[in-house]
Amino acid sequence: MKSLSVLITTLLLSLFSYADEQWRIPAQEDLIYFELETGTVVIELASFMAPKHVERFKILVDEGFYDGLDFYRVIDGFVAQAGDVSEEKPSKNKDPLKSEFTRIMSGTSQFSLVQSPDFIAPEAGYLNGFAAGRDRKTKEEWLLHCPGAVAFARNTEADSATTEFYITIGQATRHLDRNMSTIGRVIYGMPAVQAIKRASVNNASGVIENSAKRTKILSAKLAKNVAKEKQIQIEIQKQDSQQVKDRLASARVLDNDFFHFKGNGNLDVCYYQLRTRTIESN
Amino acid sequence: MKSLSVLITTLLLSLFSYADEQWRIPAQEDLIYFELETGTVVIELASFMAPKHVERFKILVDEGFYDGLDFYRVIDGFVAQAGDVSEEKPSKNKDPLKSEFTRIMSGTSQFSLVQSPDFIAPEAGYLNGFAAGRDRKTKEEWLLHCPGAVAFARNTEADSATTEFYITIGQATRHLDRNMSTIGRVIYGMPAVQAIKRASVNNASGVIENSAKRTKILSAKLAKNVAKEKQIQIEIQKQDSQQVKDRLASARVLDNDFFHFKGNGNLDVCYYQLRTRTIESN
Repeated sequence: MKSLSVLITTLLLSLFSYADEQWRIPAQEDLIYFELETGTVVIELASFMAPKHVERFKILVDEGFYDGLDFYRVIDGFVAQAGDVSEEKPSKNKDPLKSEFTRIMSGTSQFSLVQSPDFIAPEAGYLNGFAAGRDRKTKEEWLLHCPGAVAFARNTEADSATTEFYITIGQATRHLDRNMSTIGRVIYGMPAVQAIKRASVNNASGVIENSAKRTKILSAKLAKNVAKEKQIQIEIQKQDSQQVKDRLASARVLDNDFFHFKGNGNLDVCYYQLRTRTIESN
Repeated sequence: MKSLSVLITTLLLSLFSYADEQWRIPAQEDLIYFELETGTVVIELASFMAPKHVERFKILVDEGFYDGLDFYRVIDGFVAQAGDVSEEKPSKNKDPLKSEFTRIMSGTSQFSLVQSPDFIAPEAGYLNGFAAGRDRKTKEEWLLHCPGAVAFARNTEADSATTEFYITIGQATRHLDRNMSTIGRVIYGMPAVQAIKRASVNNASGVIENSAKRTKILSAKLAKNVAKEKQIQIEIQKQDSQQVKDRLASARVLDNDFFHFKGNGNLDVCYYQLRTRTIESN
């Protein structure tokens, strides 16, 4: 009996991805799949931070709004911005949204401190699995513009985002923190994001005029609508797991003989974002 | 006569790239051209910082050592490392080099302060055109591991670099500062660097075992040996130019109506690396 139960357990582990005390499986309703010309990209949404923008994003994805659009403004080291540059694509879901740059700290949210003070934020760490900042004086918390952060683009006015979004592709663009409605982060496929075609280095606006030179979005889908064979089993390190604690503790003092200079103890949470991995489906 | 002199001036400007008080043309002997499968990459060498490593790099490039080798260890968000993984490629120039992690501050070097204290370094700014750190107590200065930094790989021992090098492709890996001999930075072709194939996200070592899945170095050349029609006229912002000063001053207070939160005045010099541009040779 024991060997059978071991067999069944092994079978279950190989059929389903396994989460344990170190790793979590993100909820399917929080995942968006993008098929780009450069590959598959999966985004985990942070509806706790920007509920209205996340809701809008999911509706637009589900109605096929982004299918066939492209990344038309792409500045190396900064962001890749996608959307309907013509502003003519029809949708009933294009009204400007009220900004969700920060939210008031909540008793239900889980914040794990990494660095205080951070270079930009009073405190930086992980909030519900995302790199985040916090200010206990103003009682605000927000997501950081680390590489892979996904946010809505907008005009000068705070409450002006409608449909366009961008992905951070460079060194942390932290001056955008608390200035944009951030809806999540890329948890799979950053190499496909990094392969998105850039504007010429001489093009300060970053807008790629020739649409043939832009990287296209072949399709965007809610995870539940992705064919089973195209589903990717992704796990994410739990922010309070021992392996994350160990990684941070080791990084803080560079306790490896490789490092001859031991640093000053400060950690950039954008470099120490929670790791992801995929589970091969047998 | 006046219109003729204007004509001649215009002609000269179009024939030769022009440097002015805002931009400099890097010296040809400081430039290395890499033809990767993903595109052309140009590196500016910092011989003032790591003279022995730069000398070694130029010799290896010139003898064709890197031609046909590949980026065999590539971790998204970290580094792309290239070299002879077999360690069997012959060269007379493979003796371990004495480390050049930092150098003693020199009266002849030009340091322009951007941030003090920086998150990691006592002072951060630009040194002879490169993002750099400085410690006036120890009188040391060094180059920072910003995106695009190029350095020699090594073993655990400080004085163990021989031929392999890497390019920083992610969020500043600043824990490598003062720990590696940094030889320069990419001044053209970061999109080609970002398109280098990564190891699987599940591969912690980052070593791509299947050599067919690695991005190859088609050739590496000293600039003087690059065919005229393949030369790229590159200019780099002068670190003390008014446009750099203006950019930093504006960034420090986010003096644009787009920004509703105005930051804390701290600047990450890795995000504000000196800009480059190309001059079209019509």
